[in-house]
Amino acid sequence: MFSSDEAQARAEVPSGGGGTGARSIRELQEFVRIPSVSADPARTVDVERCAGWLAQRLKRAGLTTVRIVPTAGHPIVVARWQGAPGKATVLIYGHYDVQPARVEDGWRFPPFAAVVKDGHLYGRGASDDKGQMFTHVTAIERLLRANGTLPVNVVCLFEGEEEIGSPNLVPYLSRHREALAADFAVVSDTRMLSPDQPALTRSLRGQLALELEVLGPSHDLHSGSFGGAVHDPAQALCEIVARLHDGAGRIAVPGFYDRVRRHSRSARSAIMRHAASDASVLAEAGASTPWGESGYTIAERLALRPSLSVTGLVSGHTGQGPKSVIPARALAKLSFRLVPDQEPEEIAHLVRDYIASITPPTVRSTVHGQFAARPATIDPNHPAMRAAARAYARVFRRRPVLIASGGTIPAVSEFARILGIPTVLMGFASPGEAAHGPNEKFSLRNFHRGILTSMAFLGNLGGLRRADLRAGAQKRNAFA
Amino acid sequence: MFSSDEAQARAEVPSGGGGTGARSIRELQEFVRIPSVSADPARTVDVERCAGWLAQRLKRAGLTTVRIVPTAGHPIVVARWQGAPGKATVLIYGHYDVQPARVEDGWRFPPFAAVVKDGHLYGRGASDDKGQMFTHVTAIERLLRANGTLPVNVVCLFEGEEEIGSPNLVPYLSRHREALAADFAVVSDTRMLSPDQPALTRSLRGQLALELEVLGPSHDLHSGSFGGAVHDPAQALCEIVARLHDGAGRIAVPGFYDRVRRHSRSARSAIMRHAASDASVLAEAGASTPWGESGYTIAERLALRPSLSVTGLVSGHTGQGPKSVIPARALAKLSFRLVPDQEPEEIAHLVRDYIASITPPTVRSTVHGQFAARPATIDPNHPAMRAAARAYARVFRRRPVLIASGGTIPAVSEFARILGIPTVLMGFASPGEAAHGPNEKFSLRNFHRGILTSMAFLGNLGGLRRADLRAGAQKRNAFA
Repeated sequence: MFSSDEAQARAEVPSGGGGTGARSIRELQEFVRIPSVSADPARTVDVERCAGWLAQRLKRAGLTTVRIVPTAGHPIVVARWQGAPGKATVLIYGHYDVQPARVEDGWRFPPFAAVVKDGHLYGRGASDDKGQMFTHVTAIERLLRANGTLPVNVVCLFEGEEEIGSPNLVPYLSRHREALAADFAVVSDTRMLSPDQPALTRSLRGQLALELEVLGPSHDLHSGSFGGAVHDPAQALCEIVARLHDGAGRIAVPGFYDRVRRHSRSARSAIMRHAASDASVLAEAGASTPWGESGYTIAERLALRPSLSVTGLVSGHTGQGPKSVIPARALAKLSFRLVPDQEPEEIAHLVRDYIASITPPTVRSTVHGQFAARPATIDPNHPAMRAAARAYARVFRRRPVLIASGGTIPAVSEFARILGIPTVLMGFASPGEAAHGPNEKFSLRNFHRGILTSMAFLGNLGGLRRADLRAGAQKRNAFA
Repeated sequence: MFSSDEAQARAEVPSGGGGTGARSIRELQEFVRIPSVSADPARTVDVERCAGWLAQRLKRAGLTTVRIVPTAGHPIVVARWQGAPGKATVLIYGHYDVQPARVEDGWRFPPFAAVVKDGHLYGRGASDDKGQMFTHVTAIERLLRANGTLPVNVVCLFEGEEEIGSPNLVPYLSRHREALAADFAVVSDTRMLSPDQPALTRSLRGQLALELEVLGPSHDLHSGSFGGAVHDPAQALCEIVARLHDGAGRIAVPGFYDRVRRHSRSARSAIMRHAASDASVLAEAGASTPWGESGYTIAERLALRPSLSVTGLVSGHTGQGPKSVIPARALAKLSFRLVPDQEPEEIAHLVRDYIASITPPTVRSTVHGQFAARPATIDPNHPAMRAAARAYARVFRRRPVLIASGGTIPAVSEFARILGIPTVLMGFASPGEAAHGPNEKFSLRNFHRGILTSMAFLGNLGGLRRADLRAGAQKRNAFA
């Protein structure tokens, strides 16, 4: 099945589609083996090493200017090829940083070993986003090797801070608006509906990551000498967190839903037409019982409604065995997912006010901002979306469906806001590939199909007139 | 002030009270530098090394039989001196294991550096219990050096699992009832009222340490792809913990207070006569606002009422920075302090039933037992208590007061239950010495006064008739 499909797909992509793919896989393994965890200060050197590796790889691919741009945080890697005057310019965005991963969270293989097993590459970042972004790098190299030229102009923008909310991307975009001028962006960092059913993503949720810290006594106390006389910060934290949702699964912060966009029945059913079923979401989660805001299906909650996840808790003794101590401090990590037209800053304000109002007088609470990203929507009728759809159809032998994602890519709303361009979200990951979880993996078959799809996409773009693209962009702004 | 008091005290203790004390301090530093953290499996070797160090030290002190007794957990060190036929036998109990400690919890000096500064020895275990138990070892050595004999027979029983609830002490006591036959026990592991006001402890709370684990999805999930569709275990854990207390600071577990002993107004005021003031408890805790069961003073809550502390919370990403994940598992460490006549096993049952009843159907919860210890009371009129009072008065120039402790020493109720003997709780620690917290320390002045008090105590015991001790023991049983 693999080889015949593959052969057929290869036959239909532009010249340059050949090559065994073994080298691409070896290179992706090298890439995944660099533990570029942006959230972990101890990994700063690895993140830099990863940027260096990527820049070298882009040079070898034939991009003509490649730069590692330092920022206040982790570097941005920028590469260009501008040999197609008069043709469109596409901004290819991706991120080379990854989520944290610890083998004790349940990994079959060490998270940075990049083991290939049963047609998948296992490792943190395999699918999110090293594997997916690498499809484009490989596609560019193959096209340049075969033809000595590309059908369009290309700017690659690969950052190292996506998993921590892209804090230094906005200043970079603002300062380099002209150098980054492009007709639209393409990002491969989303999921398809299934391994064989490609999908273009029409919307992303935004995100607001906060840390709630509760402080009580000035130092850890003996739980015998003080137990029952002071309010444990850990207990007070639990009491506060328990009041962040109401009994109907709604977020209890006053005003939280005020700006949530309402959809007509028909718009709602159009958006949800190709959503995963409730049963398949639960099966993928390994959860027996659904939970969440009443009045919505699971898929609707993920696509159309905001949410709050408690992503971490820490207080006192977290090691093995007991410790008879009242910890002085407790911390919860909160991650809100936002939908249009919620504004992260406004939501942060509302959350701070609410938490202050429910904090008992026996402890002190502080809410620290971690990162914020706006939600984004994309016009499905943009010519670049149609070009992507044709490329998918050619390689996967199926027309892509339109889906709404519960995830967040901070860059997408910023490309629209700062650069004024839409983003084509052309994902190659599949449900079950466990992005952010243990045993993250990426289908090597879809890695290869992703390379071919990127090549076909770039080929299709070569046939587009820039005027059509601009018209599409205006239409998109009207839609959003 | 130090030297004149000291000289006076020395003049009044039995011969053998001399010596500069510098060697004792150096030895205590050696003892504290062994990180014998019983809760940490990675420290097993250190705990064993500590037992070996202690056994060597006891041999050098002149005890005639010294044994390291292996158990299913950490070893027990037993040493004897039985050269006073016809005289009383005192069981000296202490523990050489310590609570966990991490320098990042706010230690001025590394927790196992045993730094001497401003008249205190800083380090985990300095006061709880290495420093306090070492007063007796040093007292015995000095008396044997000076006189070649002791006023009473001595059995030293030093265990390595007190901080994890003494799980292997009960089987050991049960198996060696005859070998451990003694008239009463003495333990120095409690606090005085202040550094210059000695205190005998009349009661200890019991303890029940449990771990509450909440499980949800089968693996960590991407908080974008699943946020709002499944119940976060961390959130569910907070919801459960928030329901363990009611709005009046009482533990909400049905039946929890059923066996709590009621005290008449006069008994209550007698017990609380020498309690620390609410203001001083809060000042020591570094807390601005009290909290707890309504209807009781802070001191009463600590001495007479049970409590529940959340000693640890852990779920998901506990490191720096954000991680966009819904963790599959969340854990809370719960420590109940119990008072007469609560039975730990019965309370564990009630807690399990209650938690099962409030666990939402969207997650699974399990309660794991960690350890259990019964509360204990001691007859203040026992002849050994009076002998201890006279020893304190002689060295400290003040009569000790009787106090009720909020802490727990599992051995004490087991000595009464299994060996049928009462325990004199003759502490040398002071408020502010931060047992279990960061910057635990022990006053070197009180270390020295402790040695002298132990010598005086052993001397006083030599004058007691064994018949009086047995009468006292019977009286105690009637009282409890």
